[in-house]
Amino acid sequence: MRLSRFLLPVLKETPSEAQIASHRLMLRAGMIRQEAAGIYAWLPLGFRVLKKIEQIVREEMDRAGAVEMLMPTLQLADLWRESGRYDAYGPEMLRLTDRHERELLYGPTNEEMITEIFRAYVKSYKALPLNLYHIQWKFRDEQRPRFGVMRGREFLMKDAYSFDLDEAGARRSYQRMFVAYLRTFARMGLTAIPMRAETGPIGGDLSHEFIVLADTGESVVYCDKRVLDLPIPDETVDYAGDLTPIVEEWGGRYYAATEDVHDPSLFERTPEDQRLQTRGIEVGQVFYFGDKYAVPMKATVTGPDGVERPIHGGSYGVGVSRLLGAIIEASHDDAGIIWPDAVAPFGVGIINLRAGDADVDLACETAYAQLQAAGLDPLYDDTDERPGGKFATMDLIGLPWQLIIGPKGLKDGVVELKRRATGEKRTLPMAEALAELTRL
Amino acid sequence: MRLSRFLLPVLKETPSEAQIASHRLMLRAGMIRQEAAGIYAWLPLGFRVLKKIEQIVREEMDRAGAVEMLMPTLQLADLWRESGRYDAYGPEMLRLTDRHERELLYGPTNEEMITEIFRAYVKSYKALPLNLYHIQWKFRDEQRPRFGVMRGREFLMKDAYSFDLDEAGARRSYQRMFVAYLRTFARMGLTAIPMRAETGPIGGDLSHEFIVLADTGESVVYCDKRVLDLPIPDETVDYAGDLTPIVEEWGGRYYAATEDVHDPSLFERTPEDQRLQTRGIEVGQVFYFGDKYAVPMKATVTGPDGVERPIHGGSYGVGVSRLLGAIIEASHDDAGIIWPDAVAPFGVGIINLRAGDADVDLACETAYAQLQAAGLDPLYDDTDERPGGKFATMDLIGLPWQLIIGPKGLKDGVVELKRRATGEKRTLPMAEALAELTRL
Repeated sequence: MRLSRFLLPVLKETPSEAQIASHRLMLRAGMIRQEAAGIYAWLPLGFRVLKKIEQIVREEMDRAGAVEMLMPTLQLADLWRESGRYDAYGPEMLRLTDRHERELLYGPTNEEMITEIFRAYVKSYKALPLNLYHIQWKFRDEQRPRFGVMRGREFLMKDAYSFDLDEAGARRSYQRMFVAYLRTFARMGLTAIPMRAETGPIGGDLSHEFIVLADTGESVVYCDKRVLDLPIPDETVDYAGDLTPIVEEWGGRYYAATEDVHDPSLFERTPEDQRLQTRGIEVGQVFYFGDKYAVPMKATVTGPDGVERPIHGGSYGVGVSRLLGAIIEASHDDAGIIWPDAVAPFGVGIINLRAGDADVDLACETAYAQLQAAGLDPLYDDTDERPGGKFATMDLIGLPWQLIIGPKGLKDGVVELKRRATGEKRTLPMAEALAELTRL
Repeated sequence: MRLSRFLLPVLKETPSEAQIASHRLMLRAGMIRQEAAGIYAWLPLGFRVLKKIEQIVREEMDRAGAVEMLMPTLQLADLWRESGRYDAYGPEMLRLTDRHERELLYGPTNEEMITEIFRAYVKSYKALPLNLYHIQWKFRDEQRPRFGVMRGREFLMKDAYSFDLDEAGARRSYQRMFVAYLRTFARMGLTAIPMRAETGPIGGDLSHEFIVLADTGESVVYCDKRVLDLPIPDETVDYAGDLTPIVEEWGGRYYAATEDVHDPSLFERTPEDQRLQTRGIEVGQVFYFGDKYAVPMKATVTGPDGVERPIHGGSYGVGVSRLLGAIIEASHDDAGIIWPDAVAPFGVGIINLRAGDADVDLACETAYAQLQAAGLDPLYDDTDERPGGKFATMDLIGLPWQLIIGPKGLKDGVVELKRRATGEKRTLPMAEALAELTRL
């Protein structure tokens, strides 16, 4: 992408309304624009990161055997009356009526709708286990939206729903999602720790929140530091096999709990020098809720014994749009964002230090074409801005690599290659720089 | 994908509420489920086609130089008061209020919002031409939703918006979208004809609708048959070059107009044996509307002469979810859907004629693994349903190829390969069948 043909409205000033780093940096880097309180437009740079995060979530759901579909944003109020949650949900639910005075709502979550879909089609245990997910915009009418996309009102969420014949099956489904979440967040460069959590309005008796540690997090969390060093299951993990050892290691070996369920007496068993009390950002939550929705909504299947019974369910959310904020909170410095490679909006930025100079333009165009051909998705700053402004913008938007090409270096046959995360800069021949980038 | 782990609720009965083939077939093939009038859930099979169509639209927009972003579904009413369309839009606009009594609406289109975004950031002609697009769910509260996803209320649309300094530039932007649309629809296996059309509530003085000919279409259209044989620009088309010859050939050489702007006296110049009066389905529409939004909303840029002036704009829509209906209307038979290869939900279906038989299972698993490795995205019917049911389902869901594996054939070392579009069936050794499929 050529910067001159892109829309990247970076801000020099720090917006006064932003209280935390990620909100500030997303505004300054031209990633989002607020269109109403807690409702954002995703400008081209922000959109690219959103899509990369969504794709990682999708790949790990698919790998774990979940099947993708898509439910609409609007739902019938009557559906929520069946489960009893319509009145219980409170003012966070955005309620509306259409031209025929039919009551609708903008879905904040989809347990009711997926249960309605399931019961319409699935009658036999043979179709189980089944896990259906979608990635869709949701709405929660927060009293006080803030922190940018971290606590927005219209937000993108992945929600998966599992259906099993009995509790044992449902616990295996829960384990599959637990392991998939470990992989999902690790692929984005995040350390997300599963912590025992309350179930809240979703219900049920078993739940983990996946928490990214950050000083600006909304919840206080307590954990054993050793949980930070546990190994992430690699891509050969067998989702058809027994995942209990992984889940027990991550969910049981060391203490890790959110404030709501924190038990100081248990925490004291952790050696004092391993105890960590800090703040965290919830990026996902998994729930096992048994037949909470299946019973009132009559979602039953016939078992191998011919007996009809309500299914056992769970639901599994990932805050896709919120993850951008969480990643930035975990990975930035004074100059701007530092994107982990897997979610960077572009793989490398090319800085032309003297646009209009024939030699420099040619060298930049050559590098741009080669990096494109290698699939590195370069952003080429071909504008006529001054070098200082170009450096600042490139640091701010946080691409993993910068390839800096100017007239002085070219005279000596060299360019500069900068790694954003470390700040390390090296001067080397163009061919070597390109070889190094394309070997990545 | 193994069918036993998928959700494919095919219906044997023809649903009585469906009046046209595409609606009937999408329900019967388990692609969609109605959640409220004109509001659908996309079941896994339908979702896969939706994503393929979306991706083709995206690739052709990107190729034409448009930049993707994403605007929210909800918009502030005040934004539409600026352009004067809030009151003008009528009951098709879904209006709502949030918990703070702020007036919102579910966006039916985005001219206002994109103009607001543009004016906030772009001040100079140097950033032009600029074309921003997004693919997002929209809502139009149709009085009488019908024909399934062809006239739904919540629907997925790609809308692009171009910004230019003057009318000449804007007409070039219009031409780029015109050519991109020719390519987009052709890649999906559709013959979509650009026809002069009225501009309606979007406004402006130049518009084309892209129309797929189908007896079940909602509009009457008139055209010269020779327009059906015009060549589609290939992927080497130069969007930086002069596209006038292509646009004039497609837009001007032969008569083609919708009912609204039909001129019988002009049509009579077409030789009588070339005149075609039929019905059509609108799958896209392009508009040039000049400064209609820029003037009231004060979207201005400074030109090279230092003078500030309103930009010239256009907007360009593609009905992404509607396209599924249009493709099915254009491509089906009595047995079901016939997907064009590029949008098929799976590339090939594998039918196991005797699940549980060790030899047949092994042959099927081998074929499944090889076709997966070749990137063909097979759907493997590994269920214990009877052959007749499996054949009917596979024809109904319309995958381009079927690989049929049974005990009798295997004894002779052969399998059957069926091409869905022609019905042609051939018996051949497994290795040859796999070689043929993976050569595709």
